[in-house]
Amino acid sequence: VQEPLYMQLYKTLKDDIVKNYQVGDKLPSIRKVAELNNISKTTVESAYNQLYAEGYIESRPKSGYFVSDFNISVANLKDFKESIEVNKNSYKYDFFPAQLNGKDFPIKVWKRVHNRVLNSDIDFGSYGDGQGEVELREQIASYLNNFRGASCRASEIVITHGFSDSLSLVAKLLKDRSNTFAIEHPGYHVPRRVFGEYGYKIKKIDVLEDGLDLDKLKKSGAKIVYITPSHQYPTGVIMPISNRLKLIKYMQNIGGYILEDDYDSELKYRSRPIPSLQGLGEDVVVYFGTFAKILSPAIRVGYVVLPRSLVSSFKTSYEAHFAAVCKVTQKSLAIFMKDGHFDRHLRKIRKINRQKHDLLLKLLKEYLNDSYKVVASGGGLAVLIMPKVDFDFEKFKNLAVNSGIKLYFAKERSGGEFEAIRLGFGGFEVDKLEEAVKCLAKIWHKSLL
Amino acid sequence: VQEPLYMQLYKTLKDDIVKNYQVGDKLPSIRKVAELNNISKTTVESAYNQLYAEGYIESRPKSGYFVSDFNISVANLKDFKESIEVNKNSYKYDFFPAQLNGKDFPIKVWKRVHNRVLNSDIDFGSYGDGQGEVELREQIASYLNNFRGASCRASEIVITHGFSDSLSLVAKLLKDRSNTFAIEHPGYHVPRRVFGEYGYKIKKIDVLEDGLDLDKLKKSGAKIVYITPSHQYPTGVIMPISNRLKLIKYMQNIGGYILEDDYDSELKYRSRPIPSLQGLGEDVVVYFGTFAKILSPAIRVGYVVLPRSLVSSFKTSYEAHFAAVCKVTQKSLAIFMKDGHFDRHLRKIRKINRQKHDLLLKLLKEYLNDSYKVVASGGGLAVLIMPKVDFDFEKFKNLAVNSGIKLYFAKERSGGEFEAIRLGFGGFEVDKLEEAVKCLAKIWHKSLL
Repeated sequence: VQEPLYMQLYKTLKDDIVKNYQVGDKLPSIRKVAELNNISKTTVESAYNQLYAEGYIESRPKSGYFVSDFNISVANLKDFKESIEVNKNSYKYDFFPAQLNGKDFPIKVWKRVHNRVLNSDIDFGSYGDGQGEVELREQIASYLNNFRGASCRASEIVITHGFSDSLSLVAKLLKDRSNTFAIEHPGYHVPRRVFGEYGYKIKKIDVLEDGLDLDKLKKSGAKIVYITPSHQYPTGVIMPISNRLKLIKYMQNIGGYILEDDYDSELKYRSRPIPSLQGLGEDVVVYFGTFAKILSPAIRVGYVVLPRSLVSSFKTSYEAHFAAVCKVTQKSLAIFMKDGHFDRHLRKIRKINRQKHDLLLKLLKEYLNDSYKVVASGGGLAVLIMPKVDFDFEKFKNLAVNSGIKLYFAKERSGGEFEAIRLGFGGFEVDKLEEAVKCLAKIWHKSLL
Repeated sequence: VQEPLYMQLYKTLKDDIVKNYQVGDKLPSIRKVAELNNISKTTVESAYNQLYAEGYIESRPKSGYFVSDFNISVANLKDFKESIEVNKNSYKYDFFPAQLNGKDFPIKVWKRVHNRVLNSDIDFGSYGDGQGEVELREQIASYLNNFRGASCRASEIVITHGFSDSLSLVAKLLKDRSNTFAIEHPGYHVPRRVFGEYGYKIKKIDVLEDGLDLDKLKKSGAKIVYITPSHQYPTGVIMPISNRLKLIKYMQNIGGYILEDDYDSELKYRSRPIPSLQGLGEDVVVYFGTFAKILSPAIRVGYVVLPRSLVSSFKTSYEAHFAAVCKVTQKSLAIFMKDGHFDRHLRKIRKINRQKHDLLLKLLKEYLNDSYKVVASGGGLAVLIMPKVDFDFEKFKNLAVNSGIKLYFAKERSGGEFEAIRLGFGGFEVDKLEEAVKCLAKIWHKSLL
């Protein structure tokens, strides 16, 4: 079998880069290479992708492709055999915002519960319930009704393997009802990507000081809107009850849907959790939840609560839908919740993370002085800060890499100009935080202009 | 909060049906109800969906909605709290083709392996590798290379939670390369549904006696084609090597992709397994595999092998992709494979199901005489048969329901006119088969014209 065209091209280009190019040189555009060689743009793109994946070239938005410092990147390059996982060991301090500390996971109870399930009469010969095991859905319903002010039943819940799986399901269910999808701006990038993949037209709606701009939403004509009302991502804004009710009323009138992402709602450190929108308008709210931030991101369990009208659609369109999660995991989680371990764990996780949250704020004050402001805090697993003075972000980013600090920026994940730094504390142990902030402060002060 | 419009309409309609309609009466069309009441079609549809879900009305293709015999269906109706799972207990014999017998699952070893994983230093605080745990990918690669004639590396594999999850991933990855998707006709309905949801134009390509009609494929202009070359679904046709090579060559020339669904490939009872296409054209073949039919449908693990060009796209577009499967399940499966349990289990499952397959064919001969022909056999977990004489399918279906026999028809799942009956034997115990076939024969003979 002859080598495919893109591999031939890739090899030619690679040789050319190694022999004739300097670091930073611009490569000809994909279109130009395609025209010159009389081949398809797809082929050229594949060759460029390969060069990119192997670290020979880099892409700069709106400028094109440039030769990387590949002697460094090739040396650092993980072999193609390896994964895309961020190699955590290569960073001394990782401020990843969606992380818990593995030591807080209730491994003993989890093992016990797992064994109980494996010793029970579980049928490994057939698919489980397509909506998810009913005992888990019942536990989730009761949890949401008691602790999140929701109003739902097990029959309205679908178990998924996480937030984007939930989004895909809902994007499919809503497709016949509308093709316009409104999102918060700035806002979380994942819903935009998933709904975009299903062909929805995306409308960005500004977030004001009291949450989503309802007038703009109305003008957009969108019948589906994604919001994070209890803790807006990334600004932290909370939508007041009056606006919540207005939004629900509006969607009821036009027959639309509100997709409520209740992320971080369980982790509130300064107030009681705000009841979900779902409880106020169960007929128009699609509610998204996950266990990733309160139990473990490793077990891959999320869920979505559907309004009745969508339950019907789900049942008729996905008659042979297969559950997304292993029966053993689902049944273990159900027992874990039923026996009260989840409540206990939640209290523990909230306490530990409140402690780290408060400590992080204190340390920032101590080490960054007056050069920053806190943009969002009081909940979740991260604090957002911004420089209050002139600041060289590029220098800061480079210094971070060189100092072994892994940082996360709101801009990269919210599609906006919202230049905040997301300092996740969930993965840290309490007594490691000061050391991490000290190290951060060092590069911070060097980046002030 | 006021009741939504569709619920009001639903209640009015329900009252009307109960008081003024007879079983079998036709309801006004959705459009008509919308016009009469000056409301949107979506609202009417939601109300109808609700009536449908509760069993008041039924829908007949191209005819509209009719009042059901709801006194019966309401009595039988599972409360809305319940799931969409088929209640297996209500059937005496279930010929579901995608089922294994739970008793054949190696539960003891699985428990041991699970405990080993839970006792190891697994990090429950963070997401796992987005492509799937590397040790599982390595085991799968080695299995495919040794037993399926594949040529792949761990770096080219992505772990998913099953076949349709794999399809979604590939539909997303290919979207920028082509918008036309060719499928076998008759063929499995799921790829058409998934690619349809992502907005691809679907081209149906006839299946001839030597597999997919390559001339028609060329004429269609499609650059992506889904095939089941080793055991065409549902006809059982095997694509000969000459056509396999032609197809690969063609796709290499046009820069296209072949999606190879290798379902049932491990379960061949009359020949050695046919090597996969992937090994012949790893640069153009996307390979789909799953553990559902050889280990358990309940653990929800599948995988896809990507050509290099798509690995690059995966890495660049899904930088923060989260694995679809719980770390514990993935790591358990990896050890299960590494320690040789999987090989042993596969031999066992193949032997047991060959026995049931042969017995089923023998029993059919004995009880159905000359009135049927075998359309597909020799592999997998089902045998496909068709009546050879004039046959009342509707009567047959009704008799089956009344006799507690759950049957599956190729037509419903392959979008064609291929009127075959899929007799799954995987879920049966050997000594229950005769009883089941006897019962089937009784209603079969009553349905001959």
